Amino acid sequence: MESLRVALGSRSYPIHIGAGLLRAAELYAPCLAGGSAAIVTNEIVAAHYLSTVKRALAGVRVTEIVLPDGEQTKSWQTLNRVFDALLEARCGRDTLIVALGGGVVGDLAGFAAAIFQRGVPLLQVPTTLLAQVDSSVGGKTAINHALGKNMIGAFHQPLAVISDVTTLDTLPERELRAGVAEVIKHGLALDAGFVQWLELNVEKLLERDREALTHAVRRSCELKARIVAQDERESGARALLNLGHTFGHAIEAASGYGAWLHGEAVAAGMVMAAELSALMGHLKKTEVSRVRDLLRRAGLPLGAPQLAPERLMELMTLDKKAAKGRTRFVVLEAIGRAALRGDIDDAAVRRAIVAAVP
Amino acid sequence: MESLRVALGSRSYPIHIGAGLLRAAELYAPCLAGGSAAIVTNEIVAAHYLSTVKRALAGVRVTEIVLPDGEQTKSWQTLNRVFDALLEARCGRDTLIVALGGGVVGDLAGFAAAIFQRGVPLLQVPTTLLAQVDSSVGGKTAINHALGKNMIGAFHQPLAVISDVTTLDTLPERELRAGVAEVIKHGLALDAGFVQWLELNVEKLLERDREALTHAVRRSCELKARIVAQDERESGARALLNLGHTFGHAIEAASGYGAWLHGEAVAAGMVMAAELSALMGHLKKTEVSRVRDLLRRAGLPLGAPQLAPERLMELMTLDKKAAKGRTRFVVLEAIGRAALRGDIDDAAVRRAIVAAVP
Repeated sequence: MESLRVALGSRSYPIHIGAGLLRAAELYAPCLAGGSAAIVTNEIVAAHYLSTVKRALAGVRVTEIVLPDGEQTKSWQTLNRVFDALLEARCGRDTLIVALGGGVVGDLAGFAAAIFQRGVPLLQVPTTLLAQVDSSVGGKTAINHALGKNMIGAFHQPLAVISDVTTLDTLPERELRAGVAEVIKHGLALDAGFVQWLELNVEKLLERDREALTHAVRRSCELKARIVAQDERESGARALLNLGHTFGHAIEAASGYGAWLHGEAVAAGMVMAAELSALMGHLKKTEVSRVRDLLRRAGLPLGAPQLAPERLMELMTLDKKAAKGRTRFVVLEAIGRAALRGDIDDAAVRRAIVAAVP
Repeated sequence: MESLRVALGSRSYPIHIGAGLLRAAELYAPCLAGGSAAIVTNEIVAAHYLSTVKRALAGVRVTEIVLPDGEQTKSWQTLNRVFDALLEARCGRDTLIVALGGGVVGDLAGFAAAIFQRGVPLLQVPTTLLAQVDSSVGGKTAINHALGKNMIGAFHQPLAVISDVTTLDTLPERELRAGVAEVIKHGLALDAGFVQWLELNVEKLLERDREALTHAVRRSCELKARIVAQDERESGARALLNLGHTFGHAIEAASGYGAWLHGEAVAAGMVMAAELSALMGHLKKTEVSRVRDLLRRAGLPLGAPQLAPERLMELMTLDKKAAKGRTRFVVLEAIGRAALRGDIDDAAVRRAIVAAVP
C-alpha cells in the first residue's frame, strides 16, 4: 500500500492506494468516531463490493443507500432520495457517509455529506479509474442542473480516500479508457515527464497491468493534491486541472448527460484545447500530434463531429468557469504546462472545435 | 450607524446597524466586485423595499427573484426555483446574492449562495427583528425537510450584514414579538446584564422605540458574533445559542411549519428549558419566574398545551443536535449562563414539557 497526503491544514487527509484495500478495516476505523455509517453506492458496484465494505465495517451501524447507475443519478431528485433515506434511518451529524463507486456516486454522496445537517464526515472509496485519479481527490462535489453540469455543489473534503486498484478488474473497458483520459490530462497539464511515461505505458494501463495502474493513480493523485493544496477553492491554479473541461462539459450537455462518458468528452475537449493552443501560437503542430496520438492509442475520441460547433459555443457561455460574461479556457503552453486564458475570441474557439474533427 | 465585526480570519465581515441603511449605496459597493447581483426576497418585503435596494445598486446588473412569503418557502422546491432563475439570468460565480428579508429568505438565499456553482458571494439585508438579531449573523443557512427543520444546509458566511432598523416599522406586531424572543434568548444564554436591561426596556422594544431597538440588535449581534468567532461550525460553544431550540423545533414540526413563528416556538422552548434546568437543580424557582415574566411581558407563549408531550419527545429524537442517538439540551445554570447537557433522561424532559403548560 502507498499513502500520500493532501495538505490542507486542519482538513488534511490521506489517500491510500493499493491492492485489496477495500477489506482493510484499519483504514476505515479512523473515520468512524460516530459509530454509524451510511454507504452510498449504485446497483452495479453494490453487486461487486458492498458486502466486502460491510465486512470491513463490522460492529458499526450501517445504512445502505443503493442508487441507479449512470450520470442521470447526479440529480436533484436522487439527492433528495439520499436525504430521505438518511433521515428515515435516523442518521445524525456524526454519521460517516461512505461514497462507494465512481465519479457519479462520489460527487453525489460527497455533496449529500456536504449539506446533510450542514455537513457530516465523508469517506471516498472510488471504484473506477476516473474516480481514483481525479474526482475522489480535492473535495469538489456537485449535482447537475438541466442548464449545466455540476452547477449545484460544494467543496467538502473527505476524511480519507481508499483506492483499491483491484476494483478496476470489474470496470468496463470503455470506462477504463475514460479514466485514462483524466490520467493523460494530469500529465498534459502539469508534468511532461509523466506524459513520456504514458507514451511508453498507455497500453499497459489498458491491459490493467496492476503495477502500471498503481503508478498512474499515485502520480495523478500527487499532481492533483499539490494543486489542491495551493488552491482549494479554485481561485487560481486549480483551474488548470480543467484542461479540456470547458469544451468537454459542452459536449456532455449538447448530447444529453450520459451519452458520452465524462472522460471521453474531456479527451475530445483536450484535442480542442490543444488545437486552440496551436492557433494561438503556444503549441507546436508536432505537440498537438503527440496529444492526438496518445489519446488515440488510449481509444479515446479526438473530436465531436456529430455536434454542431455553434451549439457547443452557446453551451460554453453557460459554463461555470465563465468570469464576468467571458469564458476562460485552459490552454497548453507546452506539453506538461497548462495556463488559464480569458482573452480568447469566439472565432478562434470555433476554429479549434472544427479543427478537432478527425 | 454602528458597525461591529464578526472575527473569522479571512472570512471576517462587518455588521452595520442603523436607520436608513437600506439606501446607503456605499455599504453595498465593497461586495460588488463581480458587477452583477441577484436580489432574493419575498412578495411582502419586495412591495416595501425592493425599489430602495435596487436604487442603491444603480449601475449593477440586477436579477430579481421574488418568492412567496412564509416558512413553507424554505423548501427544496423553492430552492430549485432560485437556481432556475439564477441560471436563466446567466448569473455566474461572481454574482452577489442579496438576501433581502427575514429569516426564511436569509436561510434560503444564504443556502442558495452556499451551493450555487459551489459557492457565490452573499450579502445579508435582514428586514425582521429575528433576522437582524440572529439568523443573518453567523453563516448558518438551511432549508427544511418533511422529517425535520433545517436538516439540509451549509455554513456560508456573508460578505456583510446591513441591518436597517427602520424596516422594523412595517413588521407585523406578532413577528416583532417573535424577534424579541431571540433577543431575550441571547440575554438568558449569555449575559445577565442584558437580561436586566430587557427587564427595564421590553415594552420599549414592543413600542418600536428606535433607540431601544438599535441597542437590542447591537447587543444581540455582539453576543452572537463573539460565540461564532470561537466556534464557527458549532462543535462547542455555539450550541449554547440553541437555548429553547430543541424543544422549539419539535413544537414547529408537531404543528406543521408555519403555524407557530420560530420565535414563538423558541419562547415556549425556553420556558421548557428553564423548567428542565430547575428540575435538575441548576436554576432557582425565582429565576424560572423571571424567565416566564419577561416572555409574558413580550406577549410570547409560555408553553404548548395543545401539543401532546409524547409527540414532542418523538420529534426531538430526530433533532439534528442529536449526538450518538441521545438528544442534547441547552440548560441554564443561571440567568445569563447556558450550558450543554447530554445526560438528561426522557422522564425529566417530559416533566419539563408538562411543567411549561401555563
